[in-house]
Amino acid sequence: MKSFRRELWFNLPERRGFVNITPEVESCLRESGIQEGLCLVNAMHITASVFINDDESGLLHDYDEWLEVLAAHDPLGKYWHNRTGEENADAHLKRQIMGREVVIAVTEGRFDFGPWEQIFYGEFDGKRRKRVLVKIIGD
Amino acid sequence: MKSFRRELWFNLPERRGFVNITPEVESCLRESGIQEGLCLVNAMHITASVFINDDESGLLHDYDEWLEVLAAHDPLGKYWHNRTGEENADAHLKRQIMGREVVIAVTEGRFDFGPWEQIFYGEFDGKRRKRVLVKIIGD
Amino acid sequence: MKSFRRELWFNLPERRGFVNITPEVESCLRESGIQEGLCLVNAMHITASVFINDDESGLLHDYDEWLEVLAAHDPLGKYWHNRTGEENADAHLKRQIMGREVVIAVTEGRFDFGPWEQIFYGEFDGKRRKRVLVKIIGD
Repeated sequence: MKSFRRELWFNLPERRGFVNITPEVESCLRESGIQEGLCLVNAMHITASVFINDDESGLLHDYDEWLEVLAAHDPLGKYWHNRTGEENADAHLKRQIMGREVVIAVTEGRFDFGPWEQIFYGEFDGKRRKRVLVKIIGD
Repeated sequence: MKSFRRELWFNLPERRGFVNITPEVESCLRESGIQEGLCLVNAMHITASVFINDDESGLLHDYDEWLEVLAAHDPLGKYWHNRTGEENADAHLKRQIMGREVVIAVTEGRFDFGPWEQIFYGEFDGKRRKRVLVKIIGD
Repeated sequence: MKSFRRELWFNLPERRGFVNITPEVESCLRESGIQEGLCLVNAMHITASVFINDDESGLLHDYDEWLEVLAAHDPLGKYWHNRTGEENADAHLKRQIMGREVVIAVTEGRFDFGPWEQIFYGEFDGKRRKRVLVKIIGD
């Protein structure tokens, strides 16, 4: 069994944002040489997500608005977590909706995707350097 | 390491619905001959989910009602995604709540399930042919 | 390819609660001897979750409050599932928000975690014995 590991680094200028990371993750797969297996892509930080959906700017706007309805940033004081001096409690909640990770099938050396599947990094507490892990196992 | 791949196709007559796909996925596992490993089951479309929960019709009704509260289909115009000519923005949101995929342990040639675990396909934008991917790796 | 399997048992005294299970899961990894691979950790029951986030007591309080807003326990009669004699419909909903499972990369014999990642068992219908499955595959 082969394995491959790579960290991808991000530093988003705003508190929240989405980045299509499909090309970087596909580059990892090519470098790994793995033909059949599974690829795990996960946020290494607990206020960020990795998820698969459509790369359509209107939809990304809708996600952002919707997450703010489900888990509002303000008022800060309603979250006990923010009593620790943080102001990112909402980011920990938003990340649970969007998920920590995706697992992708590798078939004949390629990601076994449907027609519109794209891998996204979702940032909910940005303005600093954060990481995504790519781990691929197989033959 | 062995690997197995199969697509399962669905065409639900309504916009939304749930289908218990456990028998089809178990059939894949038997065909694969894999005794120890991991099985990934994921929606290949971004307005559908694969998830594990209880096969109880009242609960499936509750999920449907609840998802409509969290991410309502109407009014269509509140979603920027629908300005592209789509009317399925809510389906992309609902899918994030229910998830894209499940990963299931394979032990002694069987799914290593708790007593009530059943695999479901969740459709949020139906009336057309869509796919689920089953990928199994192991020995 | 090696594989390892272990069940972890829990019996929480309250209906809802969170338990940091990182030490128990790390103990499984050491026992497995696996150096490179993937580890699946999943709730075997459909009213519980396994998720990764921060071990901060205020945040766990916030999760509990937030889940009760998104999927309230009462009134019981609003859920069709509760007509079966259950009163845990909300627990099935809360589990979908927090997720069934996590998949963790194993690198050089250790979990390949970011700085704050901790594995939690989330119970939404406690006061009885329930299980988590740990399955590790790799070399």
